Amino acid sequence: MKLYSYFRSSASYRVRIALNLKNLPYEYVPVHLVREGGEQLKPEYRKINPDAIVPTLIDDDNRAIQQSLAIIEYIEETHPEPPLLPKSPADRAHVRSLALQVACEIHPIDNLRVLKYLKHTLGVDDAAKDAWYRHWIENGFATLEERLANDPRTGKLCFGDTPTIADLCLVPQVFNANRFKIDTTRYPTIQRICDYAAQLDAFARAAPGAQPDAE
Amino acid sequence: MKLYSYFRSSASYRVRIALNLKNLPYEYVPVHLVREGGEQLKPEYRKINPDAIVPTLIDDDNRAIQQSLAIIEYIEETHPEPPLLPKSPADRAHVRSLALQVACEIHPIDNLRVLKYLKHTLGVDDAAKDAWYRHWIENGFATLEERLANDPRTGKLCFGDTPTIADLCLVPQVFNANRFKIDTTRYPTIQRICDYAAQLDAFARAAPGAQPDAE
Repeated sequence: MKLYSYFRSSASYRVRIALNLKNLPYEYVPVHLVREGGEQLKPEYRKINPDAIVPTLIDDDNRAIQQSLAIIEYIEETHPEPPLLPKSPADRAHVRSLALQVACEIHPIDNLRVLKYLKHTLGVDDAAKDAWYRHWIENGFATLEERLANDPRTGKLCFGDTPTIADLCLVPQVFNANRFKIDTTRYPTIQRICDYAAQLDAFARAAPGAQPDAE
Repeated sequence: MKLYSYFRSSASYRVRIALNLKNLPYEYVPVHLVREGGEQLKPEYRKINPDAIVPTLIDDDNRAIQQSLAIIEYIEETHPEPPLLPKSPADRAHVRSLALQVACEIHPIDNLRVLKYLKHTLGVDDAAKDAWYRHWIENGFATLEERLANDPRTGKLCFGDTPTIADLCLVPQVFNANRFKIDTTRYPTIQRICDYAAQLDAFARAAPGAQPDAE
């Protein structure tokens, strides 16, 4: 398999953790999101990902799959062990809803192309852009913290003690937050989960600093 | 089952279509997102949905499930017929990626609370706010049109001729776009799919205008 990825892209980071947890080797193909205006916008890349975003997974049959959560569900369905979702439908819904709260309520609003639009089209200054970034992360983390802290299913990780797709979404989002100097120790459950995940090999190998295109 | 919903909320609209397709009766509990500053922000509602958004599904066992796509996957797993996802993992990934392209790349950026932040915190005027709204819809629809028009799996609907979660996400987003006077006939495949879906009873009964809280 082949993964088109950018070391700092948190959606790519999610998929890298999934591939590592499933012990699936893959070829890393770097797509630089900033250099030359963004390599993701080049026609060659748009052919395999018309939305011009990373990641894209090329599977064993040379099929291109886009959207990180669709890729992760695909990996889960084709390589069920170890499972990244619990067994019961209610627990699966809980885990998916945690993942989607990151993937739908936080990440898209702070995505690179949104920040670019704020700056270049709306003329928002850097301070207001940073405040925007913090606002959506802090708003989302406050809710996630409340949910995780109050749910008896929360363990060392978001659901029990083994990784699920909720952790795959949470850890990269916390990495992003820390990069923007957001103090995540204000969310003790989230922080505790991320500290635990950081020690796991599959997460450590997926971290931005460990990628071949890291800067 | 009980669905906390707002007639115009496109995430609620997705779940309403799913429940109708599965022939599952439910009690409709309206949450007015605008009145009195937003009923979703009241403490009673935050108890069942800490993120203060709709929809929330209360299942037969009185469990609250949030995030529309987590709810739909839950309904799919607990009530498999008729299926809202294809059989093969690769086709499921394709359908999920279409759904996620709406749910992660278009909808969150044009969500009510984002538009409120633009207006009240950044002081963006109405014309620039409308341009923002159009930009993310047009950007996303152009990509979706390209994907749907070029994929042999596209039929009368996003995947073949029977509804999948991709249609459940696309149709409400097109409803939103039309409400904001965006000319969706520029996306002929998307328009054709939505015109076909509109004739189906499960979609018609889920439409905003058919809800008890419609204005």
